[in-house]
Amino acid sequence: MLIEQEDKVHTELWRISPHMAGLKSSIIREILKFSSQPGVISFAGGLPAPELFPVEEMKEVTTYVLDTFGPTCLQYSVSRGILPLREDLAARAVLRGVATKPDNILICSGAQQAIEVIGRTFIEPGDYILTENPTYVGALQAFNISQARYAPVEMDKEGMIMDQVADMIEKYKPKLVYTITNFQNPTGITMSLKRREQLVDICSKYNIPIVDDNPYGQIRFDGEEVRDIKAIGGDQVISLSTFSKILAPGLRIGWMNGPEDMITIFEKVKQCTDLHTSTFSQYLCSEFIRQGRLDRQIARIKPDYRQKRDTMLQAMRDAFPEGIKWTEPDGGLFLWVELPKHMSAKDLLPKAIELKVAYVYGQPFFPNGEGANTLRLNFSNATLEGIVEGITRLGKLFTENM
Amino acid sequence: MLIEQEDKVHTELWRISPHMAGLKSSIIREILKFSSQPGVISFAGGLPAPELFPVEEMKEVTTYVLDTFGPTCLQYSVSRGILPLREDLAARAVLRGVATKPDNILICSGAQQAIEVIGRTFIEPGDYILTENPTYVGALQAFNISQARYAPVEMDKEGMIMDQVADMIEKYKPKLVYTITNFQNPTGITMSLKRREQLVDICSKYNIPIVDDNPYGQIRFDGEEVRDIKAIGGDQVISLSTFSKILAPGLRIGWMNGPEDMITIFEKVKQCTDLHTSTFSQYLCSEFIRQGRLDRQIARIKPDYRQKRDTMLQAMRDAFPEGIKWTEPDGGLFLWVELPKHMSAKDLLPKAIELKVAYVYGQPFFPNGEGANTLRLNFSNATLEGIVEGITRLGKLFTENM
Repeated sequence: MLIEQEDKVHTELWRISPHMAGLKSSIIREILKFSSQPGVISFAGGLPAPELFPVEEMKEVTTYVLDTFGPTCLQYSVSRGILPLREDLAARAVLRGVATKPDNILICSGAQQAIEVIGRTFIEPGDYILTENPTYVGALQAFNISQARYAPVEMDKEGMIMDQVADMIEKYKPKLVYTITNFQNPTGITMSLKRREQLVDICSKYNIPIVDDNPYGQIRFDGEEVRDIKAIGGDQVISLSTFSKILAPGLRIGWMNGPEDMITIFEKVKQCTDLHTSTFSQYLCSEFIRQGRLDRQIARIKPDYRQKRDTMLQAMRDAFPEGIKWTEPDGGLFLWVELPKHMSAKDLLPKAIELKVAYVYGQPFFPNGEGANTLRLNFSNATLEGIVEGITRLGKLFTENM
Repeated sequence: MLIEQEDKVHTELWRISPHMAGLKSSIIREILKFSSQPGVISFAGGLPAPELFPVEEMKEVTTYVLDTFGPTCLQYSVSRGILPLREDLAARAVLRGVATKPDNILICSGAQQAIEVIGRTFIEPGDYILTENPTYVGALQAFNISQARYAPVEMDKEGMIMDQVADMIEKYKPKLVYTITNFQNPTGITMSLKRREQLVDICSKYNIPIVDDNPYGQIRFDGEEVRDIKAIGGDQVISLSTFSKILAPGLRIGWMNGPEDMITIFEKVKQCTDLHTSTFSQYLCSEFIRQGRLDRQIARIKPDYRQKRDTMLQAMRDAFPEGIKWTEPDGGLFLWVELPKHMSAKDLLPKAIELKVAYVYGQPFFPNGEGANTLRLNFSNATLEGIVEGITRLGKLFTENM
């Protein structure tokens, strides 16, 4: 009987929730499997530059943390996150003009968990979320599991177009607004100060929380910082961020900063799902802040990423045929490419893979599936030589298929 | 306007899912807040003995992992879990007679996340889960978030009473069976071989997956090992375990072992919620296994926990009045106390806290809220002196309130 069992398909044999049985894997994670093959130049993931990871410093900090905190850093800890790290993050927020106490902070397993916990707390099947169009595909994945629907708002170079926001709110009554105000994923666009103020005004009027996913805000290498939307909107805004892009994604430490009564609810939701986030990783992040190492690390990343962005932009000017447009972001990890309307970035991807260069096509970033002619390029992960070579190959591919 | 905002209650102002607004925090985590006060002897949590954490070895292993794997152990990694760790865990399962390949393993953020992901994958609001009565309160919390209902089955000293299982399945058509076959939390009871075989037979007949939550199976210090229910049931069983009780809970590494087609679904659910579990923690756990350190650590824990259990049992015999019954488990971290029916362990807890000794009262472990006269005692966390002193205080309290 047991031998028969092994041949059966459990996904049919057992009564799985139909919604879960139909879940799709992240297209980015699928493309990453191809792009991690040897010799492939990848502009696909949102991976930080591995050569900049502070491996030696991490050894010093792990030893320090184990010497100083001993068993405490290996034991269970509170669901909200260890107090020292919440104090550190609150202090850093205050420096950026965001009034924050440690109890406004909930430590999560990456900003991804923060997104998912918020979605799960607000969304009942069929509820709407207002987003940029396009938006971060991982957020769509996190919200999809709660069976959200979307009210996507078009963007220009200043971010979401505000006339559309009010219309969409009236029409769809979204439970929340999800935005990436700084160096948006996937477009690289930063929302202007005026638009931030308008968005806060509109959402205050309708009592709709703004979730500002902000993993890239600290990686600005050109231009002037725009006032943090949470400094403008206060408790109207729940701000998310992460150590993934400024220290190391493998630690899986992100956080949210929101009104304390809501943080208490989010904490309970998180507690049900994993009790708490890694105590050890939290102590490591806290000590990177306290020893001044995080700020030095950010200072190391920025000129490197600037050079990579500049190299990519120059290579695109040299290699891409006329009729292709792209953004030129002042920070972050991504830029956004629009091919002529008749071209499909999805159809071209297998050919790019043959040429051993990978990107993510843009369509999955659009909640309603437009954008066949768009694609996202990451400039943080490849080497300078890889960037020139990869863009040159893409230029040939695009020229041949114009 | 913004100043007014700050005084408003966002939980009323914003449209939270009503189910989430009503979530309760874990009673254990609440009691832990009291019991972590200085001078309190705590039998409340499921915390491993901190004095046994391998702090010095962790320093050696972190340095080794950073030297050997460099940036890779700090980078994003695949959702299913790093291959070396899945290979290690599969090999260990095979040694216990459980046919396992690396793709049968999904690494999770503690076994808690494994429970939650499974619940979420199967349960639609109102669906039933068959459990022991009582059962692990954290599992109830994880399943409650998916709005599960329960078919709880009474236990005797051999575990679930099988006559009730078939009746409950016929009556409630549960989506899954959740059991803790080894040193059950909260009772310390281990399911007998015969019951395991019966449970597999019944669940095979009805095509219902058995989820065996097994964090304590490797911490047996007396008696003979009972054949792993997954060795008996094969693909009919999804087995969960964790490094929390045998290495360090602060790393937050657990895993599930199940049929590959189901693991693929669970992986997608997990991916939506946090992309993947800490790469760094996974490498640490893998190296603890590969360097033989984990087995040495387990060998260190067992005699210590045996001594603590013996000390607690002797102190109970000395201090507890007649009319109180308890279990005498051969392993794990917990034993279970039944006061006379007229006594309430919940009502006595504040008095115990006044005496600076903490336990968890039993009622939250019962899906349907019985068990007012029961309580759970943890013997792994307190010192030997603390155990004698704490049990003596409880003995006085119980005697005064008989």
